[in-house]
Amino acid sequence: MLQFNVIKNDSSSAARLGKLTLTHGTIDTPVFMPVGTQATVKTLTPDDLYQMGIKIILSNTYHLYLRPGADLISKAGGLHSFMNWQRNILTDSGGFQVFSLSKLRKITDQGVYFNSHIDGSKHFLTPEKVMDIEQKLGSDIAMCFDECAPYPCSYDEALNAVKRTTKWARRCKDNHTREDQALFGIIQGNVFPDLRRKSAMDLIDLDFPGYAIGGLSVGEPKEDMYKILELTHMLLPEDKPRYLMGVGTPEDLIEGVKRGVDMFDCVLPTRLGRHGTAYTKTGKITVRNAAFADDFSPVDEECGCYVCQNYSRAYIRHLIKAEEILAHRLLSYHNVYFLNRLMENIRTAIEEDRFCSYYDTFMQEYKF
Amino acid sequence: MLQFNVIKNDSSSAARLGKLTLTHGTIDTPVFMPVGTQATVKTLTPDDLYQMGIKIILSNTYHLYLRPGADLISKAGGLHSFMNWQRNILTDSGGFQVFSLSKLRKITDQGVYFNSHIDGSKHFLTPEKVMDIEQKLGSDIAMCFDECAPYPCSYDEALNAVKRTTKWARRCKDNHTREDQALFGIIQGNVFPDLRRKSAMDLIDLDFPGYAIGGLSVGEPKEDMYKILELTHMLLPEDKPRYLMGVGTPEDLIEGVKRGVDMFDCVLPTRLGRHGTAYTKTGKITVRNAAFADDFSPVDEECGCYVCQNYSRAYIRHLIKAEEILAHRLLSYHNVYFLNRLMENIRTAIEEDRFCSYYDTFMQEYKF
Repeated sequence: MLQFNVIKNDSSSAARLGKLTLTHGTIDTPVFMPVGTQATVKTLTPDDLYQMGIKIILSNTYHLYLRPGADLISKAGGLHSFMNWQRNILTDSGGFQVFSLSKLRKITDQGVYFNSHIDGSKHFLTPEKVMDIEQKLGSDIAMCFDECAPYPCSYDEALNAVKRTTKWARRCKDNHTREDQALFGIIQGNVFPDLRRKSAMDLIDLDFPGYAIGGLSVGEPKEDMYKILELTHMLLPEDKPRYLMGVGTPEDLIEGVKRGVDMFDCVLPTRLGRHGTAYTKTGKITVRNAAFADDFSPVDEECGCYVCQNYSRAYIRHLIKAEEILAHRLLSYHNVYFLNRLMENIRTAIEEDRFCSYYDTFMQEYKF
Repeated sequence: MLQFNVIKNDSSSAARLGKLTLTHGTIDTPVFMPVGTQATVKTLTPDDLYQMGIKIILSNTYHLYLRPGADLISKAGGLHSFMNWQRNILTDSGGFQVFSLSKLRKITDQGVYFNSHIDGSKHFLTPEKVMDIEQKLGSDIAMCFDECAPYPCSYDEALNAVKRTTKWARRCKDNHTREDQALFGIIQGNVFPDLRRKSAMDLIDLDFPGYAIGGLSVGEPKEDMYKILELTHMLLPEDKPRYLMGVGTPEDLIEGVKRGVDMFDCVLPTRLGRHGTAYTKTGKITVRNAAFADDFSPVDEECGCYVCQNYSRAYIRHLIKAEEILAHRLLSYHNVYFLNRLMENIRTAIEEDRFCSYYDTFMQEYKF
């Protein structure tokens, strides 16, 4: 089940305000989805995320397939029930992870042979198998199994990945039956505009309820990413949600929105948090630095989150130095809240027809 | 500031119900104090602890003195402000830690020379210095600096430690001026009844507002601990709170209460939680065990805590196997809640004059 309405188009950019209704509720877009790789947004509970106003999270098919396994999660009543999350979930397909995390053995048209990054065990994933897994997980949005060519790669490698991604997308569609789960296609094509065009057209032909832009933010220059987004914006149907996978930083989010993206996900807020780094209005700060040892101000003066309302930089720095888990938890909370609030601010700016001035102010104030 | 009232004495044991009022509120006793070694009860926020009804925590002078330092905490406005905890705090004196954690260099009547367990740096703590630190931390209860002889040790070693502990207690008292902080004496004497008697009498002479029983649960047989507690109960003034340091397990808590103890602290609930072990009504369970892989029941069927209301053993086991920090957090929460609820149940049983039958039932049901 998926319903998507564009509420407002920005007058001077491709930014757009939308409402995306899925089985577990309605989401205002553009939206940032925190990542719960292994059925938890690291260090945080669902209640923490509800408190921030998070309406959708992402979880990883590759990881959950390997551990604890789709059958176990199905037995628990699906992923929502297993992890006690009552709002929406998007599951990726594992396509990116088999190419980036596992020891890849062989790709054929039939599927991908790989060794688990956990215990080296041998596995074979096909589009059919991935559909079976994602339907067992019972996410609200499932992603097609795709081939994500590395960056850099040759034109021919990228072309082959596009062709295979299209074939696999068809097989995914043919094997997808859950009506309470929407299936998105993933556009590949690396940094080659005509391949991106071909991939988009192929998938549009298959008529998915939403489209993802994959294989970006994997090392290519930012300009390439922006160019691809501008192109994709021109190609994709206006009435379908667009999801930029694995992105990103605050500046990437605002640049993506400007180019018509509706959905984002990224591990950065929690990963940075666990490494002692926090987002602030003026850029990232490394809270573990000695400079903050006796700084009793909050992480971000302007932030209304639980952490900034209750704890100082000095205290969090102490927790980091003392290797206390609470440091990870507090900084992860703040960073996810920060990106969620950034998206709220962006949505308000679009609604009030001042997205471009919001963009300018952000770019002036935020050092990256 | 300290006020203590015994509300009710159990008719068939030394158990007693009390109200202990300190600068940051009133506490029902007997009470279990979760340990926040480094200015945090590991993995948990103050809000988590408020939610469980925790009224007092313990923090460690030795650790805070080494990192981040008493002056920094004083600059933050004291420990309550630094760690954002608005209820009561008891600080130990570091006596136990310099003997158990640090590389001990030399004990003289003047004080203790030791090397930090963190960076090997040299330090010298005296009763005067410890009073200075604890008053800077601004806890509600401070402990005297004591010498904790190891177990086993000779009678003469234990005697010397008792004599020094008394001398140091006097110096602590002479150097303690904060009126919003109560100073407790610590009874030593190892497993030697006459030394315990001597230590208790010495400290009673100094007239502290509360007395701790130190140097127990350090390896001696349980029978020795019980014997010492029974003796101490006979010696200590009835109208002062009695605190059994570093204890303990559920069975130790109920045995301690039976022998007249009002206050306890222990790192076990959080430490066990981080190691994948949970308390249940019928004993500890190792949640990481394969037996729980598809057990979708809560950690403890009878527990009303946030964790047991929302998560299954199977999910928490998955988090442990996947090395997710949330596992530590959820099990720490449950275990602290469990001990706090045990103390609530004990208090209700004393109030309703059925402590001994509660004790019998507990001992029958709880496997240890």
